Amino acid sequence: MKTIVNPRDLHLLTRKWRQAKKKVGFVPTMGALHEGHLDLVRVCRKQNNITVVSIYVNPLQFGPEEDFHQYPRNLEQDLELLRKEKVHLVYTPTNREMYPRGFATEIQVKGPVVNGLCAPYRPGHFNGVATVVVKLLAAVQPDRLYLGQKDAQQVAVLKRVTQDLNIDVEIVECPIVREHDGLAMSSRNQRLTLEGRKIAPILYKALKVGKSIVDLGETKAGNVLDEIKKVIEDERKVKIQYLEAVDAENLEPVKEIKRGTMIALAAYLDNVRLIDNIVL
Amino acid sequence: MKTIVNPRDLHLLTRKWRQAKKKVGFVPTMGALHEGHLDLVRVCRKQNNITVVSIYVNPLQFGPEEDFHQYPRNLEQDLELLRKEKVHLVYTPTNREMYPRGFATEIQVKGPVVNGLCAPYRPGHFNGVATVVVKLLAAVQPDRLYLGQKDAQQVAVLKRVTQDLNIDVEIVECPIVREHDGLAMSSRNQRLTLEGRKIAPILYKALKVGKSIVDLGETKAGNVLDEIKKVIEDERKVKIQYLEAVDAENLEPVKEIKRGTMIALAAYLDNVRLIDNIVL
Repeated sequence: MKTIVNPRDLHLLTRKWRQAKKKVGFVPTMGALHEGHLDLVRVCRKQNNITVVSIYVNPLQFGPEEDFHQYPRNLEQDLELLRKEKVHLVYTPTNREMYPRGFATEIQVKGPVVNGLCAPYRPGHFNGVATVVVKLLAAVQPDRLYLGQKDAQQVAVLKRVTQDLNIDVEIVECPIVREHDGLAMSSRNQRLTLEGRKIAPILYKALKVGKSIVDLGETKAGNVLDEIKKVIEDERKVKIQYLEAVDAENLEPVKEIKRGTMIALAAYLDNVRLIDNIVL
Repeated sequence: MKTIVNPRDLHLLTRKWRQAKKKVGFVPTMGALHEGHLDLVRVCRKQNNITVVSIYVNPLQFGPEEDFHQYPRNLEQDLELLRKEKVHLVYTPTNREMYPRGFATEIQVKGPVVNGLCAPYRPGHFNGVATVVVKLLAAVQPDRLYLGQKDAQQVAVLKRVTQDLNIDVEIVECPIVREHDGLAMSSRNQRLTLEGRKIAPILYKALKVGKSIVDLGETKAGNVLDEIKKVIEDERKVKIQYLEAVDAENLEPVKEIKRGTMIALAAYLDNVRLIDNIVL
């Protein structure tokens, strides 16, 4: 397994791969790898000749009040995990490589994909995500990009941006990987207290309650969201930031539940921000 | 010579070229081709196996008060000229291909490259240029990008953006091509009246007066600009928009003339906006 820090070194390699007609799959991460990431890596390995993983905690996507400095980092352990998965190349650029002095370019995203859900609570976040992923795609030049559905809005934004910018890449979405008790895997779960960790599965339990009501015939989004809210609010330590029913493709809010409606939420627990979603 | 309208068709071809280790050179244009463009095409042909030219009048880089609708268009004649130059492929996307309904992504550029010169007079222009060129580069995926020094600020912006976004392309700058009387070639020259066309070479004459004063030992930028201004203002029909001395690389204003100082100007004549520059 090779490790590369410099995008120009990466370009030399990617040119060779393309000339050799290798299919290249790419999994961008911020490290602190868990089974959710490793699932993406395994799907990528199956579908491509070369698997590239990036590890980079992107300062541009954190707000000034957010947890950039607290975000878990563990490069040695991450590299060990990726080695076991037989990843071909890990790209670990530094902040100086990514945003050198004089850096002056930002990808800005507008429209329905950034109207709701996380966007109003994280101003600048999706521009930061779009900017770093466009840079990573230019450095790696993969055929396929692997993203997890846990970050559903990120997937929608990156579909929009890659299509808008005519980037020649196929986006492969992979389902949310969960702990045995249903908690969606997240690097931020490490930051929960033991007590918080026991409470956290309430989010997915509540989403499943919502789904079961829909399965029983409820179609008003408002009613379904109210029931989900009740379940979560039983846990006094959990503070809901948002809870919305949207079209899973374009993220526009819906009042009537349909096939392809997604219910998504963000909530604080132990000062840790958790997100989860379910597609109906 | 092939003509392609759709970026996805282009991707299929560019993949083949890369696999065959062809060097691809790219000349982006807004059509209304003149010897300045053809010079870029000829340099490109010499340095690469494949030459791609795009013809697209990009609405995003025109302000609401600007000449988008008056901008000269002559596709048939342009294609004939490119055929004679043995161009391999012409990419002529439509507005619907480039900015379909729901398009929501913009490249924003900040910092010294967009502080002075054209930028304050053309708000949004360089973001529009950056957005379309990033899209064209993603569609064509060339090894080299050919740009003319007449649009010096555009060159500086695109160097910044391609470097910032880690796009694997080499930018080749080509000198300004001039008419016999010194007027910098421009598609907009077509829109001058006969009288205006006779007056227009004053801009370059004035820049050369400035250069001769520098050659005689003047180092104060203010003095050199004053002399240039005097020459241009002799022609009452010419209205200077800006006249600045800047560092040719980063476009920061300079007070002392040095090697690598550029004097750049924009002026209106017959309601047509002309730009020119000279590097000392």
